[in-house]
Amino acid sequence: MNDSTKKAVILVSGGLDSATVLAMAKEQGFDCYALGFDYGQRHRAELAAAIRVSEALGVVEHKVIQLDLSSIGGSALTDNAIEVPEYDDDAKGIPVTYVPARNTVFLSIALGWAEVLGAKDIFIGVNAVDYSGYPDCRPDYISAYETMANLATKAGVEGNTLRIRTPLIDLTKAEIIQQGMRLGVDYSLTVSCYQANEAGEACGKCDSCYLRQEGFKAASVSDPTRYAV
Amino acid sequence: MNDSTKKAVILVSGGLDSATVLAMAKEQGFDCYALGFDYGQRHRAELAAAIRVSEALGVVEHKVIQLDLSSIGGSALTDNAIEVPEYDDDAKGIPVTYVPARNTVFLSIALGWAEVLGAKDIFIGVNAVDYSGYPDCRPDYISAYETMANLATKAGVEGNTLRIRTPLIDLTKAEIIQQGMRLGVDYSLTVSCYQANEAGEACGKCDSCYLRQEGFKAASVSDPTRYAV
Repeated sequence: MNDSTKKAVILVSGGLDSATVLAMAKEQGFDCYALGFDYGQRHRAELAAAIRVSEALGVVEHKVIQLDLSSIGGSALTDNAIEVPEYDDDAKGIPVTYVPARNTVFLSIALGWAEVLGAKDIFIGVNAVDYSGYPDCRPDYISAYETMANLATKAGVEGNTLRIRTPLIDLTKAEIIQQGMRLGVDYSLTVSCYQANEAGEACGKCDSCYLRQEGFKAASVSDPTRYAV
Repeated sequence: MNDSTKKAVILVSGGLDSATVLAMAKEQGFDCYALGFDYGQRHRAELAAAIRVSEALGVVEHKVIQLDLSSIGGSALTDNAIEVPEYDDDAKGIPVTYVPARNTVFLSIALGWAEVLGAKDIFIGVNAVDYSGYPDCRPDYISAYETMANLATKAGVEGNTLRIRTPLIDLTKAEIIQQGMRLGVDYSLTVSCYQANEAGEACGKCDSCYLRQEGFKAASVSDPTRYAV
């Protein structure tokens, strides 16, 4: 297969990590189909950010799926009754910002779209180093998902192999930012904050803001994030 | 744990199989949380059927999630430009009624709800005997899904075990119907047809109608299906 005809579905949330993943997939020669979700998230500003990122980096299509996970709730990101906590270095266990089965749901819809497109590659920006401790960001999980995905689909039945690609999984946040800078990602377009306001301005206090700030510091890159004062 | 406090999420589509599964889960002492999907399916009559079934058998809650799989397409069930074929004994391969990754998507949202509820059991009416040849109905797939699900969630991290229960997987359609009759399932409430009309009347010609008709015959049970003339 010619590189110019390789299709991939990329989960693009509007955050720093998935923007970097999209740039990496482009560098690898994939025709990129970006997929985002309007899932009832508190930080809806990331939806507009995702579209900006897809436009800036260039995708064949950017699709947004409506899916109301807030009717299930169980997370500070989908239930306004649960507050987003400030970063706490001593916090243990899985934080309340964990959205039950979110990556599994997103990957599954990506899997369906990949099958329709004839794409054999799905990219997701999970990271197991500088991350919030979510179970569905671990390498064992991704590996099990890939095995399942190949049994779930025509591709599996026909012996073709579908790959879940996680180019960030072993990188620190600083290394992710360095990759993105090399590839020309404009991080000012991205929104990572769990409770960004409508203008896309970050709180500067949540886990996600903390990891992002520390990442820019460690990468010696000026932080382009806009903060709500 | 007392049997009376066991919670389970049951995928209830409105068809014959999932109605039987719901009755079986009730018999096993589960408090049942029914989950259905308004996913852009051609046979929307099954949504009303699902609610009738849940009411008749008794559930704690019946939740319907809006999820537009028709924006992905790729199936006669979600793309009106693709016709539902008549049953063909010589048909080979995966039929056009296959919805890419549908069971994976449905199970994943069920997984999220189960986690929020604290349910450790998810029931799905897949069947690998009298079925349409979909890859995501095979035992290997279900087993791989369960492995993945336990890595995806808090339950997995905390060492609790989540089970994907498929009580129909090895049964013929006739055996499924016999189980349902024993448990008092009213199959006149159910809609199996891939292109049922708004009144819930079946075409009598598609794969799903054929398998259902043959099942009632083989079970020596009078077929309560209402057909469009």
